[in-house]
Amino acid sequence: DGPSVKAAQARNGQLTKPPGALGRLEDVAVWMAGWQRTDRPHADTPQVVIFAGNHGVTAQGISAFPPQVTAQMVANFLAGGAAINQLSRVFGARMDVHALELDQPTADFTQGAAMDEAGFLRAFASGWDAVDPGADLLVTGEMGIGNTTAAAAIAHALCGGTPGEWVGRGTGLDDAGLITKARVVGEAVARHADARGIEVLRSLGGRELAAMAGAILRARHLRIPVLLDGFICTAAAACLDAEAPGALDHCLAGHVSEEPGHACLLDRLGKVPLLSLGLRLGEGSGAALAIGVVQGAVACHSGMATFAEAGVSDG
Amino acid sequence: DGPSVKAAQARNGQLTKPPGALGRLEDVAVWMAGWQRTDRPHADTPQVVIFAGNHGVTAQGISAFPPQVTAQMVANFLAGGAAINQLSRVFGARMDVHALELDQPTADFTQGAAMDEAGFLRAFASGWDAVDPGADLLVTGEMGIGNTTAAAAIAHALCGGTPGEWVGRGTGLDDAGLITKARVVGEAVARHADARGIEVLRSLGGRELAAMAGAILRARHLRIPVLLDGFICTAAAACLDAEAPGALDHCLAGHVSEEPGHACLLDRLGKVPLLSLGLRLGEGSGAALAIGVVQGAVACHSGMATFAEAGVSDG
Repeated sequence: DGPSVKAAQARNGQLTKPPGALGRLEDVAVWMAGWQRTDRPHADTPQVVIFAGNHGVTAQGISAFPPQVTAQMVANFLAGGAAINQLSRVFGARMDVHALELDQPTADFTQGAAMDEAGFLRAFASGWDAVDPGADLLVTGEMGIGNTTAAAAIAHALCGGTPGEWVGRGTGLDDAGLITKARVVGEAVARHADARGIEVLRSLGGRELAAMAGAILRARHLRIPVLLDGFICTAAAACLDAEAPGALDHCLAGHVSEEPGHACLLDRLGKVPLLSLGLRLGEGSGAALAIGVVQGAVACHSGMATFAEAGVSDG
Repeated sequence: DGPSVKAAQARNGQLTKPPGALGRLEDVAVWMAGWQRTDRPHADTPQVVIFAGNHGVTAQGISAFPPQVTAQMVANFLAGGAAINQLSRVFGARMDVHALELDQPTADFTQGAAMDEAGFLRAFASGWDAVDPGADLLVTGEMGIGNTTAAAAIAHALCGGTPGEWVGRGTGLDDAGLITKARVVGEAVARHADARGIEVLRSLGGRELAAMAGAILRARHLRIPVLLDGFICTAAAACLDAEAPGALDHCLAGHVSEEPGHACLLDRLGKVPLLSLGLRLGEGSGAALAIGVVQGAVACHSGMATFAEAGVSDG
């Protein structure tokens, strides 16, 4: 939003600090102002929404944890015991959890499309519907044993390179598992070589990835800024960008994950992460941590006195 | 504290996440546990303490802002209008401001020691006394027109190299000013070539730097973990380390500043910053932003369920 950006930039230049001294916080605040159409941006009602899905591809032995852990962790989210519960609380975020047909894993995408069209649309719509229109900042997180394999397959399909460049250890895969994972990713991408944009997400994704994409697109329509989380969230989002370049202009990279493909994928999307702390948990945890940075940025921008108000000489 | 660290490490290994998946947050939480002597560390009562001082060396034309701004910004702190006020509020920190004999600048350290022994001890003691024993995390910040010149002189005295490697633009110095600043730093360090450790701080520092060192040392005695802020705070702290290696073991680097000497000085101290967002404001602003990261880290560590509690398979 041009006028809001200009008004926020003008305000930023009058605040009691040397020009540019708040570094990236200034850019974040002005960017928030543009999406929120105000010169006083805010991040008082953040929402963290987590989607969980199960993956047929786990039958190929690509994860260090068994698929039952997806449902067990959903129970942990609902009981308040996971990392994302603590982080949501620290930064005052509403947290919602959506378990997506966990008893019916997606198809093994080395054999066929992960989801048929109806199933994909159900998952995508559950993301679309999950966004609180009253939120002023959105984090989309995920849980799904096997989903770094889906993310690696999506990244490989969208960006090329070799499977080995996009696979990592996920929750803690051993060396043999890592070789299997790269083989599985290569087979999957070869099978769905004709897929483009959103079709990549349907073919190689999972329900939780489709739902994150739906939520991110809904946020765009509601002008709610989004903090992208790690590799899986970013892979889902990248399918929106592949479908419509610029579709992620309302998204910042909350952090860069330890999962090796993430930095590369962010770079392809032109996103510079706010945080780099070696996280590789998922759940939206890295992006939730970045809520604090955004809250700091908008608090400074919207709350500081101007040179004139404070009677400070401006150099 | 060995037993607390061991207990915290044991707890960390049982939490519902893959081992190491919270990256640096896990290290921060265990480190906090050691200093706080508990396996459930906390950051609920952070304190931000800001010291302000004036510098005789400003007569040499080494700052883009006039020295009157120091007192004007103290008034802004007290009125709640500065960046650090907003950041302290966002992260729930108590904030205290101490103006140190602003009407009597320290001596121009190109001509003699910045402070005599009595003056240095007054400033150091005001820092020592400013720490709230009930704080569970401390940020020391500063305001003082000219104090990046003091910091550069200290860093050059402690670490060697050339003056040009340690000077930066501070609040926005132009090219000619930068050349003057390097000359001034060179002259100052040459004049006080015999100073070591705390004597470097007395000779080349300012009252706010001496006070920050006093507060950091007091925090050590109280076992309160400290987040170091930018170049000036780190230069003050580095004098403690020069006096007694290991004196900063209770300190983490909150962020790395855009001021070019800061990254180099942190590297000398073996400190890896939590944040890198291009800030160069001072006031404790970068460290205050890092309070959010520490709060996230300890919230996860102390609040998460274990695999056994949550009934989650641990791989």
